[in-house]
Amino acid sequence: MRNDQRNSDNLRAIKITTEYINHPEGSVLIEVGNTKVICNASIEDRVPPFMRGQGKGWITAEYAMLPRATEQRNIRESSKGKVSGRTMEIQRLIGRALRSVVDLEKIGERTVWVDCDVIQADGGTRTASITGAFVAVVLAFGKLLNKGTISKMPVKDFLGATSVGVLSNGTEILDLNYLEDSEAQVDMNVVMTGTGEFVEIQGTGEESTFTNAQLMRMLKLANDGLQEIFQIQRNTLGDLSDRIGETK
Amino acid sequence: MRNDQRNSDNLRAIKITTEYINHPEGSVLIEVGNTKVICNASIEDRVPPFMRGQGKGWITAEYAMLPRATEQRNIRESSKGKVSGRTMEIQRLIGRALRSVVDLEKIGERTVWVDCDVIQADGGTRTASITGAFVAVVLAFGKLLNKGTISKMPVKDFLGATSVGVLSNGTEILDLNYLEDSEAQVDMNVVMTGTGEFVEIQGTGEESTFTNAQLMRMLKLANDGLQEIFQIQRNTLGDLSDRIGETK
Amino acid sequence: MRNDQRNSDNLRAIKITTEYINHPEGSVLIEVGNTKVICNASIEDRVPPFMRGQGKGWITAEYAMLPRATEQRNIRESSKGKVSGRTMEIQRLIGRALRSVVDLEKIGERTVWVDCDVIQADGGTRTASITGAFVAVVLAFGKLLNKGTISKMPVKDFLGATSVGVLSNGTEILDLNYLEDSEAQVDMNVVMTGTGEFVEIQGTGEESTFTNAQLMRMLKLANDGLQEIFQIQRNTLGDLSDRIGETK
Amino acid sequence: MRNDQRNSDNLRAIKITTEYINHPEGSVLIEVGNTKVICNASIEDRVPPFMRGQGKGWITAEYAMLPRATEQRNIRESSKGKVSGRTMEIQRLIGRALRSVVDLEKIGERTVWVDCDVIQADGGTRTASITGAFVAVVLAFGKLLNKGTISKMPVKDFLGATSVGVLSNGTEILDLNYLEDSEAQVDMNVVMTGTGEFVEIQGTGEESTFTNAQLMRMLKLANDGLQEIFQIQRNTLGDLSDRIGETK
Amino acid sequence: MRNDQRNSDNLRAIKITTEYINHPEGSVLIEVGNTKVICNASIEDRVPPFMRGQGKGWITAEYAMLPRATEQRNIRESSKGKVSGRTMEIQRLIGRALRSVVDLEKIGERTVWVDCDVIQADGGTRTASITGAFVAVVLAFGKLLNKGTISKMPVKDFLGATSVGVLSNGTEILDLNYLEDSEAQVDMNVVMTGTGEFVEIQGTGEESTFTNAQLMRMLKLANDGLQEIFQIQRNTLGDLSDRIGETK
Amino acid sequence: MRNDQRNSDNLRAIKITTEYINHPEGSVLIEVGNTKVICNASIEDRVPPFMRGQGKGWITAEYAMLPRATEQRNIRESSKGKVSGRTMEIQRLIGRALRSVVDLEKIGERTVWVDCDVIQADGGTRTASITGAFVAVVLAFGKLLNKGTISKMPVKDFLGATSVGVLSNGTEILDLNYLEDSEAQVDMNVVMTGTGEFVEIQGTGEESTFTNAQLMRMLKLANDGLQEIFQIQRNTLGDLSDRIGETK
Repeated sequence: MRNDQRNSDNLRAIKITTEYINHPEGSVLIEVGNTKVICNASIEDRVPPFMRGQGKGWITAEYAMLPRATEQRNIRESSKGKVSGRTMEIQRLIGRALRSVVDLEKIGERTVWVDCDVIQADGGTRTASITGAFVAVVLAFGKLLNKGTISKMPVKDFLGATSVGVLSNGTEILDLNYLEDSEAQVDMNVVMTGTGEFVEIQGTGEESTFTNAQLMRMLKLANDGLQEIFQIQRNTLGDLSDRIGETK
Repeated sequence: MRNDQRNSDNLRAIKITTEYINHPEGSVLIEVGNTKVICNASIEDRVPPFMRGQGKGWITAEYAMLPRATEQRNIRESSKGKVSGRTMEIQRLIGRALRSVVDLEKIGERTVWVDCDVIQADGGTRTASITGAFVAVVLAFGKLLNKGTISKMPVKDFLGATSVGVLSNGTEILDLNYLEDSEAQVDMNVVMTGTGEFVEIQGTGEESTFTNAQLMRMLKLANDGLQEIFQIQRNTLGDLSDRIGETK
Repeated sequence: MRNDQRNSDNLRAIKITTEYINHPEGSVLIEVGNTKVICNASIEDRVPPFMRGQGKGWITAEYAMLPRATEQRNIRESSKGKVSGRTMEIQRLIGRALRSVVDLEKIGERTVWVDCDVIQADGGTRTASITGAFVAVVLAFGKLLNKGTISKMPVKDFLGATSVGVLSNGTEILDLNYLEDSEAQVDMNVVMTGTGEFVEIQGTGEESTFTNAQLMRMLKLANDGLQEIFQIQRNTLGDLSDRIGETK
Repeated sequence: MRNDQRNSDNLRAIKITTEYINHPEGSVLIEVGNTKVICNASIEDRVPPFMRGQGKGWITAEYAMLPRATEQRNIRESSKGKVSGRTMEIQRLIGRALRSVVDLEKIGERTVWVDCDVIQADGGTRTASITGAFVAVVLAFGKLLNKGTISKMPVKDFLGATSVGVLSNGTEILDLNYLEDSEAQVDMNVVMTGTGEFVEIQGTGEESTFTNAQLMRMLKLANDGLQEIFQIQRNTLGDLSDRIGETK
Repeated sequence: MRNDQRNSDNLRAIKITTEYINHPEGSVLIEVGNTKVICNASIEDRVPPFMRGQGKGWITAEYAMLPRATEQRNIRESSKGKVSGRTMEIQRLIGRALRSVVDLEKIGERTVWVDCDVIQADGGTRTASITGAFVAVVLAFGKLLNKGTISKMPVKDFLGATSVGVLSNGTEILDLNYLEDSEAQVDMNVVMTGTGEFVEIQGTGEESTFTNAQLMRMLKLANDGLQEIFQIQRNTLGDLSDRIGETK
Repeated sequence: MRNDQRNSDNLRAIKITTEYINHPEGSVLIEVGNTKVICNASIEDRVPPFMRGQGKGWITAEYAMLPRATEQRNIRESSKGKVSGRTMEIQRLIGRALRSVVDLEKIGERTVWVDCDVIQADGGTRTASITGAFVAVVLAFGKLLNKGTISKMPVKDFLGATSVGVLSNGTEILDLNYLEDSEAQVDMNVVMTGTGEFVEIQGTGEESTFTNAQLMRMLKLANDGLQEIFQIQRNTLGDLSDRIGETK
């Protein structure tokens, strides 16, 4: 039994509230246990300079935490005047993951800005961000569909993410909370599509290593957890779910 | 009648949700119409270097907006690598206002960090921040009282803020929303204590001016609106309200 | 009697030297007691990007202090690599104040850059900057009139600023010097036009508050002091004074 | 056949020159095909503040490229005034990887600074950096052993890294050069210990995905390539090789 | 004849006003033709960390220009967030020059901060800064002598600076103004002591070169001009002049 | 005899390796004793904004050190987020020196980017950079000649640099190594053309001064050393040497 009474293969409760903020084209609050992230998707009618004239769109992501999302208050990155390596790594990951399931050729010269702002953190903020941002992006494209700006949903497949890890006692577990993450020897983030293909695997032993057998068991746990996540996304999106994949 | 059906002397609906985030000592979500601000108060057991050894505490505030709190997405200040003049002006105002009603001598060598993060903006974000931050600070001190760290509530009086202004047709109005604020010739923020004393008055004519008579009418509107705000704070704080002023 | 032998309603001696530096279109050294500020107004034949194509001009201000303008040497903001909140607040105030009395429609697509550099500080540097900058701006427009670039003086009214405050003994005083400012419970800056309208009122209680009656007495003191200031500006500007208001 | 005449499971030629620069405790030039990286390991007799008093050491890494290491000249990060997300991601990876095979408890309160400076880039700079930095670190500890500062080699195992990927035609290949990397659909970096355990797996589909079967084939290719790399490291280190693992 | 009616070996008029600003220990305004620089010397009772415990002092200099010191308004370095290469070069030169004539062993663990702020520029701002800063530093030490903090004037010799150059017609000239400096093929700054020794020679051909014979003629011109400068410094300093050299 | 067995008028051994890195148009590794600098010259087919439309080219230089080029590891300037004054001074010097011997009118609207990266430092890094960068620039233009982009070698003369100094015992020496440089009272860098004209002389007494006679002896030492340097450059460049000066 884990510190929050879960079995090793249990996800925490996931709740996705849509239309959380009224300005963005797509806006959700995702709660994964005590982790809470506001994911906003904004559509801008132009692309960054390096992509102009290609008739293609772009997706970029930013990630931040409120100073008191964590047990200890963090100094704001705006006060420090620079963004930390951890933040950059996470926002590059979120952007890359979303681009893998969006048909950028079909959205015209538009940029989707995805903002993931963690208001409360209890482990797994980057994977919650990806899972929530996917829903926000589909909702934003839903608005473009409604207005007739685009005629087909440019999202090719579902996209979700979760973490798996190995505790110091050797147990492999799914969806680590903060305490588990602090104690784990190995931490792996898995980003996967609805059809079961990998988008990103990042497995890390901090002052530790892992065997091929452990890798296989972790991938199995992640895969099973992600099936549940895709179902929650499907329920949240309702009819829009059926349009996913229509440009394939 | 105003664009949101209010009379000139009507506040927007105010809702204060306490214990909004679980890590900070005091945490509220304040909603003033469509303006929504998370106000967190964190207690740190030391003071900044310039105050050490005086046996006295300090209160400091930070203010930020999510990029999509507004109609147009804003670039994050962490990405720009610097905090704007507007942000600095607001966070200096919030800190100053809170310090005016807290008995810093009674809180020991502690710093209260107040974080006001606007998640949705529709005008009046700085005044909503002050009104909400006051509640968060009282709640945080309530925790210290409960733990016995301090024996008396070090807050001397209630503190609230609202805006008043003059529309281009000459009407004075209370609690401007974003559209009204954009159109107004004069904008004034009033910060007041529960006993009716001013803490801060900032009246500004942008490419315009105002007469003494207009000033008097605006101060009257602000005073009346603030009485309602103090009642809402009182209702939110419940029994803790009665301890305000006990160090006087 | 005050620490420099003034009555509570006395201004310090004010001296305005014109054509102080030879490159700027308008240049003055203003001395208010021991406070000395170089105010330069430069005319640039274009406006910032957000204003292009509107046929309208802009006024922007910058403010700085020499490191040894003060009793203790300050670190240069260029060495720190960022401008402080206090500096930003002051330069925003100066720009806003000047824009309120200039008919931006009448100056074409030009920017007036106002630089206020404090070479010696003894309290009231922001109000001295406004009073001096007004003269520098009128002089700069005078040059444009002489060259025939514009045909009417685009300044609608006189503009001056001063401070008032409440000492810890409860006395309201006019034009605080540095020692008074350090000791005062309430500090208020008043920016006013020659016809007696307010442009800006910023009243602040640092760890203190003020009543409505105190506010009224402070406004009266400020108003009386400003009449003297307008007379000094008028004397300094000579014939150019008569052209102020001709576009109204 | 690949663009440089290799089979899909061929590494490029690897050459490691030791004692490349004379100041650092450990210094190597590693050449992997046309990729050339100077890896320097410096020992400092103290640890960062967050680790003081624990009797434990720390390893940290920095990574940079000369402006003309690449086909197009890059702007220096010192001129831009900030380090890019890519650079931060890489230097965090190198540091983490090295820490996984060093017994930090056995090196005392010392910091090992690892500097990887790419002087010529042709793909695989981060994996070449890890492979070369490992040798530099062992050499640096060798110096401490010779001086008697430490009595056992604190390195627990060999450490190497390589990349694998999937070309657009579906072929899995080992050790991608720059052209292959630009064209690949999937790119995976594998960091492994001499005993075959994973330290880090980072597999990424940029605008693409990969199946479980592809993952398995890529891991096999990486594993085989890494055995050759460990042999080259062993040959380079000579007698010092035999001391690796003696603290286990 | 030169553009301002001088002969090739004529200095511009030099005027040094002492006690220009009242806070610094030493303060002068130096005017060299139309170039005007405020030079302030501040004494701080401690040295930078790298010098602590040596019983020795330090002199450091900062240099800046008001935005409108020049014909075209310059952007403030504080707004740009960094100091230009030119500024750094000049402030390093000023500091080095002053240190060469001050007996740092005799001033105790004190730092002399020298601030040179150009309020009007017409060529030769760095050499005017050195000549003026020397006077400010002697005046500051004079204050320490008066207070009995030190017992001997720690300045070993006079120090002055001027520029020489070669015009495009081949003429060597002394003390270039801005127009001459813009046109010159060679520009040389010479810093010299009262006993005729060189402290610094910086001769530069921008897109040009100079012969040994030209060098000799320029050094002669500089030497003659500097004798006049030392006389002006001597007259300005009065009795304090006689104490220069008393620690030798 | 000096600490490395040289006579006072001996250069250290100089070795210039061409085509050191394969991407830049011109690339050399210059070794002057233990000082090693990679000098790369890159040709870009445009000029900076301030030079556009003049039909003329530009040369600009950047200089950096690897963190462990020195005995003590230095913090990277990219990590500090700003370039030091020393670095700026050196890169301005290198750029200026190269521009003095290149006929910028003959290279069209192109920029030559010169990167000097010190991988090992033992004094004289700036003069080694100039001597090596000259060779890299000639090689880069050689590539343009070969491709027929330009028809004549736009380099007007050879360019070399060395240092001279005065030790504390009064001896004048040529080509100071790091230990000598640390101990010297006077340090002078001399940049000269092949025909014996000066491009730059920078003589500095740090807390010391020098006489005219010492200056003359140092210039003689520098001149003799530079003749050897020009011969080494000539040998390195082979046939390209003969084309230097053909646009004169």
